[in-house]
Amino acid sequence: MKDIFVQSNTNSYHITVGESIRFQLEDYLKKDYSSILIVSDENVAALYLDDILKNFSDKPIFQSVVPAGEQSKNMQTFYQLQTDAINYALDRESLIIALGGGVVGDLAGFAAATYMRGIDYIQMPTTILAHDSSVGGKVAINHELGKNLIGNFYPPQAVVYDVETLKSLNEREVRSGYAELIKEALIADTDFYHTLLETDIYNLSNSELQDHLQRGIKIKAHIVEVDEKESGIRKHLNLGHTLGHALESDLGYGKLTHGEAVAIGLLFSLHVSEQVFAVEQPFEELALWLKNNRYPLSDIDYQTDRLINKMKSDKKSVKSKIQMVLLKELAFPVVEELKDDDIEKYLNSFIVRMV
Amino acid sequence: MKDIFVQSNTNSYHITVGESIRFQLEDYLKKDYSSILIVSDENVAALYLDDILKNFSDKPIFQSVVPAGEQSKNMQTFYQLQTDAINYALDRESLIIALGGGVVGDLAGFAAATYMRGIDYIQMPTTILAHDSSVGGKVAINHELGKNLIGNFYPPQAVVYDVETLKSLNEREVRSGYAELIKEALIADTDFYHTLLETDIYNLSNSELQDHLQRGIKIKAHIVEVDEKESGIRKHLNLGHTLGHALESDLGYGKLTHGEAVAIGLLFSLHVSEQVFAVEQPFEELALWLKNNRYPLSDIDYQTDRLINKMKSDKKSVKSKIQMVLLKELAFPVVEELKDDDIEKYLNSFIVRMV
Ligand SMILES: NC(=O)c1ccc[n+]([C@@H]2O[C@H](COP(=O)([O-])OP(=O)(O)OC[C@H]3O[C@@H](n4cnc5c(N)ncnc54)[C@H](O)[C@@H]3O)[C@@H](O)[C@H]2O)c1
Ligand SMILES: NC(=O)c1ccc[n+]([C@@H]2O[C@H](COP(=O)([O-])OP(=O)(O)OC[C@H]3O[C@@H](n4cnc5c(N)ncnc54)[C@H](O)[C@@H]3O)[C@@H](O)[C@H]2O)c1
Ligand SMILES: [Zn+2]
Ligand SMILES: [Zn+2]
Repeated sequence: MKDIFVQSNTNSYHITVGESIRFQLEDYLKKDYSSILIVSDENVAALYLDDILKNFSDKPIFQSVVPAGEQSKNMQTFYQLQTDAINYALDRESLIIALGGGVVGDLAGFAAATYMRGIDYIQMPTTILAHDSSVGGKVAINHELGKNLIGNFYPPQAVVYDVETLKSLNEREVRSGYAELIKEALIADTDFYHTLLETDIYNLSNSELQDHLQRGIKIKAHIVEVDEKESGIRKHLNLGHTLGHALESDLGYGKLTHGEAVAIGLLFSLHVSEQVFAVEQPFEELALWLKNNRYPLSDIDYQTDRLINKMKSDKKSVKSKIQMVLLKELAFPVVEELKDDDIEKYLNSFIVRMV
Repeated sequence: MKDIFVQSNTNSYHITVGESIRFQLEDYLKKDYSSILIVSDENVAALYLDDILKNFSDKPIFQSVVPAGEQSKNMQTFYQLQTDAINYALDRESLIIALGGGVVGDLAGFAAATYMRGIDYIQMPTTILAHDSSVGGKVAINHELGKNLIGNFYPPQAVVYDVETLKSLNEREVRSGYAELIKEALIADTDFYHTLLETDIYNLSNSELQDHLQRGIKIKAHIVEVDEKESGIRKHLNLGHTLGHALESDLGYGKLTHGEAVAIGLLFSLHVSEQVFAVEQPFEELALWLKNNRYPLSDIDYQTDRLINKMKSDKKSVKSKIQMVLLKELAFPVVEELKDDDIEKYLNSFIVRMV
């Protein structure tokens, strides 16, 4: 069991990665809360909700279970959580527990951030991807016109990451999570990148998995400490996300998982980096590894014009100019503003390269 | 023109009170924003929106005008503002201007707090009441089950208060605003309280009005500096609001203005304070002044049980116990937890006293 400490401007908290720690939650709570609301999705609730309930026999504890999937990160479900919180009489001394993947974390975190102008919450990530989403305090729901457009920066009081829960993940979700680990390795840790390239993500020992998660979290946590509000280096975490988000939204959420879309976005970033900086990047090497690990790379329906429009309305853009994170070399990310014409050119040559 | 500086944990900003300053907005902006969205309501927009537009001939400037009144502090209008912000391509370097009373300030402030996880906004209060709501960073919308239940602490970049705009307020709104000034005087400034008790609020010189607003704002600003997140003395600002909020919501928003409801709540606080501390309070004196200034005090439909339930689900309550701000003496507020039975007793004797 390893502990990572995050000290941001607005809060500090511990991230604990370990086995079976979902049964010892009291150890990770800073306060004696008046009541607790567990937010989870249908899949996760069926598997682990009872385990969490066992921790709290002595106080009022409630549950809100939402449908699984990105669709739950919407205004209606958000409002329903507020209604539940009111009906269960949650007060300013209550706690929300986000038990699930990034969807539950983002949604429940935003509910906690806004209920009575903010109450405490903890993250209990249950997907590999959520090693990323549970750290750093970004919480949000989607607008019909774009992903994560309505949200806050609102750090949790603790992140309690029980890797045992990851055993029930299916292949797709393992893939999705590993894309973010690759991303973190690419922007900050060449060694970690090479380790990952030697990994078969579907045949992992528990200790390998814990090691990868911890290395990923350390990178994320360090960046967030330096730049909580994303005015500087936190932008680097968006590597692969400019095209990733556009694809996710254009194909319809759920067609590709977030990480699958990001994986394609990572390749696109390498592709653009090669052109912009006239340097070689490990494009082919990464593409091969992704293919070997069964990431969906071909048969993607690229609608160039629509994708460019979506990239322009991305939160990362300023004055409708597309900003992208690129790599000068491995572990050397930079943010570049790109001309519309250039983006179109790069996207077209990328599509050709991907078939 | 006077300037009050607020230094809170999360931000610092200037509050400027003056005449005609709505025509010199550039002086109060800290940055060269990429674009601007003015949020206002129909009444205020008709009177002052053009004045604001004149300030910005050189950059993209947009407007969202919402219906006047408390009803606009709801989820639908909030979502519509987000839609507007997206359609107008607001980005992280954009500014929102909240031009209006407390409704517009709370609503537009919450939209700014959550659009792309938070962009800059300034408050341009146009009601007397908004001297209070525009300072301190509390922003929120209402839930069907309760007022201000969904929101953030999110300070503005500046408060630009042009008292000239207050000339178009009707009697009701003048009354509503002066209730909050009385509240501030009661919790912090006996001198100011006595000054107000000699005031006929419908026949004020401009300099009297400015003086009152500045004294009120100073009290508010000082409290917010010490306790931004309302874990301690900021609670004192809720004097009169426990019953005030309950009445507002139980009678239906709009029946009484916020300040009219608070005025009754202030009397209730004095009434309860007399019982709890067995001291005399200026109940009759204040009631007389309120009556002279045409506050609606009689013919109120008090539904005791419903009011008590509403007071219990108030944000200020913890574990469903009602917490009230009381006065040990003038300018000596304390927070007390009250038993349900006692509240009922006090409320019943209060109702008798009010007829
Ligand atoms: N806040 C951030 O900083 C941040 C960063 C990255 C991604 N995100 C967000 O995260 C979301 C994606 O997260 P995700 O990939 O975890 O999606 P998810 O939460 O939808 O989980 C994926 C699927 O796995 C199921 N699942 C979860 N845990 C399981 C378990 N232990 N066993 C079996 N099934 C399980 C879920 O029910 C769901 O069907 C996106 O909305 C994205 O925007 C946020
Ligand atoms: N955030 C806080 O700290 C805080 C504090 C106190 C109150 N509030 C909130 O403030 C709201 C009440 O604010 P309010 O009383 O200003 O209400 P309001 O914004 O609805 O304004 C009252 C009425 O006056 C009109 N109006 C506004 N300015 C005018 C002008 N210059 N000339 C003519 N008409 C004008 C409006 O159109 C409206 O009809 C409530 O929602 C309350 O919850 C918030
Ligand atoms: Zn991501
Ligand atoms: Zn008030």
